[in-house]
Order: sequence, then C-alpha cells, then structure tokens
Amino acid sequence: MELVSRTATFGGEIRRLKHRSEACDCDMTFGVFLPPQAQRGPVPALLWLSGLTCTDENFMIKAGAQRVAAELGLAIVCPDTSPRGTDFPGEHDDYDFGSGAGFYVNATQAPWSANYRMYDYVTRELPALVEAELPVNGKWGISGHSMGGHGALICCLKNPGKYLSVTAFAPICNPSNGGWGQKAFINYLGEDRNDWAEYDAAVLIGSAEEKLPLLIDQGTDDEWLSDQLKPGSLEQAAIASHYPLTLRMQEGYDHGYYFVATFIEDHLRHHARALS
Amino acid sequence: MELVSRTATFGGEIRRLKHRSEACDCDMTFGVFLPPQAQRGPVPALLWLSGLTCTDENFMIKAGAQRVAAELGLAIVCPDTSPRGTDFPGEHDDYDFGSGAGFYVNATQAPWSANYRMYDYVTRELPALVEAELPVNGKWGISGHSMGGHGALICCLKNPGKYLSVTAFAPICNPSNGGWGQKAFINYLGEDRNDWAEYDAAVLIGSAEEKLPLLIDQGTDDEWLSDQLKPGSLEQAAIASHYPLTLRMQEGYDHGYYFVATFIEDHLRHHARALS
Repeated sequence: MELVSRTATFGGEIRRLKHRSEACDCDMTFGVFLPPQAQRGPVPALLWLSGLTCTDENFMIKAGAQRVAAELGLAIVCPDTSPRGTDFPGEHDDYDFGSGAGFYVNATQAPWSANYRMYDYVTRELPALVEAELPVNGKWGISGHSMGGHGALICCLKNPGKYLSVTAFAPICNPSNGGWGQKAFINYLGEDRNDWAEYDAAVLIGSAEEKLPLLIDQGTDDEWLSDQLKPGSLEQAAIASHYPLTLRMQEGYDHGYYFVATFIEDHLRHHARALS
Repeated sequence: MELVSRTATFGGEIRRLKHRSEACDCDMTFGVFLPPQAQRGPVPALLWLSGLTCTDENFMIKAGAQRVAAELGLAIVCPDTSPRGTDFPGEHDDYDFGSGAGFYVNATQAPWSANYRMYDYVTRELPALVEAELPVNGKWGISGHSMGGHGALICCLKNPGKYLSVTAFAPICNPSNGGWGQKAFINYLGEDRNDWAEYDAAVLIGSAEEKLPLLIDQGTDDEWLSDQLKPGSLEQAAIASHYPLTLRMQEGYDHGYYFVATFIEDHLRHHARALS
C-alpha cells in the first residue's frame, strides 16, 4: 500500500492509501480515519459506502463524522465508488453509471465484468487488506449513503455474521424498480431480473438469515425519494418478514451531505454500541 | 436578495443568497447558517472570512460548525473571498492573487480599485444587509482562516466596538513580511509600505484601541507557518502592547479544514460567551 496523504484531525488521523486491487484489476484509493485510541491498540471499524459521483473523500470532508468517531474509538474506512483508470465506451459520460457508480455489484456483462467487481472489493478484498495492515480488530459495522446505502444493506443482508451493525442514509432500497438501479443492473448484470434480486435490499430482506437492527434516516424533501429510493418497499418487506427496521423520516431534509452530517452522530453511536 | 438555495441542517438551515454589491460593483453570493433559535427571534452572528481559493461554501461544507452553532443559537455568515464576474488581466491566473484572493482590503490601484473593495464589503455593506434582511440581532463576532484569519484580525483591530469577539485559525499575521501578503499589497495598495500597515495585524495590534481577548489556533505542521503566517510577529507585538492573545500551537496539525474542524467548537463557544 502506498500512503497518498496523512492528516491529523481530532487527535487521530486520516490516511489516504492506494493499492493494487485484485477484485477490480486496477489501482484503488481508499481513506481511513484512525481515532486516537488506535495508537494504543486495534479498534473496531465502520465501513462507509458512498453514493453516486463520490470518491473516497466526500464522506471524510463533508460528514463531520471524525469528532464522534474519535470519542467512540471507531475507525472509518471509505472506499471509492467504482474502479478507476479504465476507459470503456460511455464509462465517464453519465453521473449515474460507470465511473463513480459501481453500485457495489460484481458485474457479469462485458466489458464491465473485467473490472466492476465492487461487491467483492468491499466485502472481501478491502476489509482483509485493512485488517492485515491497519490497527483494526476485525469487528465491522457498515453504513452508507444513497447508492452506498444500498451497498450497505445488500452487503449486510448477504453476509450474515460479517457485520455487527448496519445503518443507512437515504438508501436506494429497491433498485430493481427505480431508474438508477435499472440502468445499472441492465448494464452490469444483464436483462434477467432474477439476477437483480441478488442485489436488491427490498428482496433480500424477506429471507435474511440474520436480523441485525437496521437504522435508516431518510429526508422528506429528498428529490429522489419516490422515484429512486423507495424506502416504502423496504419497509413493507421488513414488516412482512418481521425484520427490525427503524425508518426515520426526517422532516424537511434533502438528499445531501448536510442531511448526513445532521444525523451521523446517531448512526455512529448505534454502531459503537454493537461494536464495543 | 435572490435565494440561491436553502438546505435544512441541524434543525436550522443554510441559505445561499445573491445580491448586487455596491462596494464591489458586482453580484456577490454569500452563505448564512440560521440556527433553529432564529425561527423564534433574532440571534447573534459570527462573520466567517475564508482563505485563498475559497468561496462562500467551503466553510459551510467542511468545518462541521453547524452542530455547535445550532446548540449555541449562533448564526454564521460566510462571504465570498473576492469580487466575481470581472476579468482583469491576470485576475484568474494565480491561486494567491485576484479572484478568490481579495485579502479583505480596499484596493487603491487600477484596475483593482474598481471592484476589489472587500474591506468595505465585509465590514459595512454585508453586515448591514444581513441585519436588514435576516433574523440577526446586531451582535457580531468575527473569525476566519488563513487569508480570512488575517481579515478577521484587521477588521476587528480597525473597528473598535464593532465586534464582541474575535478568533482566527492559522491567520496571515504579518502580511507585509510574507510572499502572499506582499504580492497582494503591492498590486492592490501600491509600493508604499506605509499603506500596507493599515492592513497588517502585527502592526495594528500595537495601537489597538480595544483589547478583545484574541484566540488563535495554529498547527505546528502547517507548511505555510514560517514563510507566510508568522504568528511569532503577532505574538511579539501583542506582548509588547499587553494585548490579551492566546496563541495555541497545535502539535501535528496542518493548514487544512481537518485542522479547522478539530478546533471550531472551541472557537464557537468562545464567541458565544461574548455574544449571549
């Protein structure tokens, strides 16, 4: 791993690290916040998955999470949102597909399947690398925003035992039935909707083997709420399968990072309770 | 004033507002955070002056100040860092001069003197506009970062009674003796160093009519510390004139917003004590 930068904050530090990814067959950069407690021994970690157009940096810069993470002794690991350095036709044309929009799936369709294997990257390769190289103790929570909220939900629902806590901000809850998800799934996974179900939280939650309490915050003034995010579909499926979901509709909040910043403290405390 | 955007955060809201500036003879955009308390009546306000390359948005996005400001019932007003929309020769070529680098002075040299009157803008026009149009009570604190820290210091030192509190992060303390300041002052103010003294905190502090307790945080790993910022010059002058300066050298911190975010809570509480 190559150290890109190292910046002191809240008694801990943010490192940006670059490494060759086997899953994505390219160089990947990620960010990690190490709280002051990590200077004395390994700490639990939150894996944060970001949304469309983001890199590893958006959450670190905008969410204001480090203050509480430093208090709680929680590391935060922020991967990028897609492979980088490739140049497939159309890869960089749209904000909602291709670079910056990996959707945390393993693509099966050419040409994407050669690199767009973000599911393997965030569930297997990156956590193993972090555990091997950084002072974390192997206890993981997972969270994310929008496309990254979708990522957090599916990673958790598909991997019982892997995470001790899960939350999400304005997640894409039922991507098979929204424009962003359909565009991504058709191109990455193909036309067969049965293959989409594997990466759709509103489907997966009905047969979850493990039922971690799930906290979701969603703004009522989010412009993507009804067309793209569809928390109602997840809520219905959660009720039907007795999954413990707390869906908080936050009056007047939109989809942006000012919304995430407002409620990140609640989420971090939720994770810390399970991880410590 | 034209409302550019309005975003809920921490129970309050951030508004971006655009207006015709008389001082700068151009349209100017500024940001304001209104805490939840402003829904019930006027609140005190902190004027935040940003550094080189910034707009009205950087502090709002990166400093994580809204949480504490919402708790304390403090509005935060963030002007831009220079006039916009003009196109003088060389105006947009350098990060440390021209657009994004108004240095909070009233330029006297052509062509800059036509628009670069940021001192009048931030000390007179903008506060008057905010007091007329927004729920603030006329009690002001002032703070800023780097070039904006310089701005906060000179605005306070030149206007006894105008502000009730003052702090700064990594301010340019003695611009007459650093590269950034000299480049700006030669071009905006001309070659006569006597004219520079009017905008140099390390000079002004020696004859301050009012001695507001001044809190400064400065990172020891700041790459600009010795060549550009020179807090030692300010400290010497403060000691000589018995000015109450608390200069905190923060071990391992650099010049960026992760440093500001770490200590902004202390500064906001310092201001709130004087303003409430």
